Amino acid sequence: MTARLLSGTELAASVRADTTSRVAAAAAAGRVPRLTVVTATADEASAWYVRSIARAAKRTGIDCVVVDLGPQAAPSEIHERLAESSADPDVHGLMLQTPLPVGTSLAEAAQFIDPAKDVDGAAPASLGRLVAGLPAFAPATAAAVVALLDHHEVPLAGREVAIVGRSTVVGKPLAQLLLARDATVTLCHSRTRDLPAVTGRAEIVVAAVGRAGLLTSAHIRPGAVVVDVGTNPAEDGGLLGDVAPEVSEQAGALSPVPGGVGPVTTALLLRHAVEAAGW
Amino acid sequence: MTARLLSGTELAASVRADTTSRVAAAAAAGRVPRLTVVTATADEASAWYVRSIARAAKRTGIDCVVVDLGPQAAPSEIHERLAESSADPDVHGLMLQTPLPVGTSLAEAAQFIDPAKDVDGAAPASLGRLVAGLPAFAPATAAAVVALLDHHEVPLAGREVAIVGRSTVVGKPLAQLLLARDATVTLCHSRTRDLPAVTGRAEIVVAAVGRAGLLTSAHIRPGAVVVDVGTNPAEDGGLLGDVAPEVSEQAGALSPVPGGVGPVTTALLLRHAVEAAGW
Repeated sequence: MTARLLSGTELAASVRADTTSRVAAAAAAGRVPRLTVVTATADEASAWYVRSIARAAKRTGIDCVVVDLGPQAAPSEIHERLAESSADPDVHGLMLQTPLPVGTSLAEAAQFIDPAKDVDGAAPASLGRLVAGLPAFAPATAAAVVALLDHHEVPLAGREVAIVGRSTVVGKPLAQLLLARDATVTLCHSRTRDLPAVTGRAEIVVAAVGRAGLLTSAHIRPGAVVVDVGTNPAEDGGLLGDVAPEVSEQAGALSPVPGGVGPVTTALLLRHAVEAAGW
Repeated sequence: MTARLLSGTELAASVRADTTSRVAAAAAAGRVPRLTVVTATADEASAWYVRSIARAAKRTGIDCVVVDLGPQAAPSEIHERLAESSADPDVHGLMLQTPLPVGTSLAEAAQFIDPAKDVDGAAPASLGRLVAGLPAFAPATAAAVVALLDHHEVPLAGREVAIVGRSTVVGKPLAQLLLARDATVTLCHSRTRDLPAVTGRAEIVVAAVGRAGLLTSAHIRPGAVVVDVGTNPAEDGGLLGDVAPEVSEQAGALSPVPGGVGPVTTALLLRHAVEAAGW
């Protein structure tokens, strides 16, 4: 058996097309949505991702401003910059890129992002609204997983989903989104005792750990749907997922890396920016 | 086999004793912590619970003010009253009792509770801080489950826990607390397809649904730890848990209703009030 490919390319293109036409309509009325990305790292993968956001924003007509505070930025500098952009009426969407300098906590810093502009759902207030079932921006990656499954018509209600990775950026908010869709959700992590047993009984497995090839066919029950969220740098400069290539022989469907969740994430981030502008 | 009883009585008494001595110390310095409970219902069980909080508060020396807005209260009335108490420096702890009048959403209303006074962890901001790992008051019932398991030395790290019930008041915040303690957590609910299969593989099962006797021995694996959070009114005026009595023959340990999580919840609520006062 070879897994059906859950590509994100087509969905990302259709989200981008919709965003582009909304931005064009706003521009015709003299308004341009602005997305501010605050970054404070020398990390190569992060820089690559920020450049790809900026490029994609430009193509859709969104004004993307990258504020690079450098890897030595103090927490207070980052906090102030986020507070400033939160208060600036010309900034519609605001995100803080990770990783952050040692000594800066994402949770602490994200409190300075206005939830109304929090297009990557990082602020504790946004996470709380998600838990409470109030309207909120979900982290773009978590939203992309659900959007990708919907696009490929994978039913969620009543199904058993195992999420591997309990980060505040992906695992925990994704659990909220899937619960809201009536899935039975298990959150696994590095301290889970028998990971193959836990993931092996799930109908849908989402890998969001950040370790190349962590999930092998021993972790996946035949025919399961596997969503790979991992983006680990490969030696050749490419990307490796958290799911080992052999899993494609075992799974019923598999979202690839690259070309799965990634492009959808960027597309949703830009859609969020236009939604944040209210246009 | 008969299950070991995970009584909450002893733990509740010890938490109350600690709170009482902290309140006495504050009172000696002329300060009395105040807990304001806003209620807007004619529900009998709710009225009973509020009276028991008020009684327990009085015994520990906390000034408990019950604001009864009546079952006809409009959302705006409830919101205003919460905002007022949030702004009042003489109010240290503030909670909104459920159920609420039809048309009032707990999530919407709880936004008017200052997170610093939110002793029952209902505000979306408190829930978000919990998810993000920032200091926050957890809902007292969710905190009581973990405290009870700790008191009876039930290890959590690496263990499989199934929570039945995905409410914002218990199930979802409890999942966050258990994840922070390195448990592998599954959230089940009314749409879970094969509940006995899911709960039957867990080492710890928490029932927080609100349906008397929903969990039978078919749901519990022999020797598992079972925590009953249900408080369903019985015909004789007493309380029935979500766990059927027969489970005590199957489980390795069981927290009873009444006398398990309930008294610990009230005790923690009062401790939260003293912590909110900062004394």
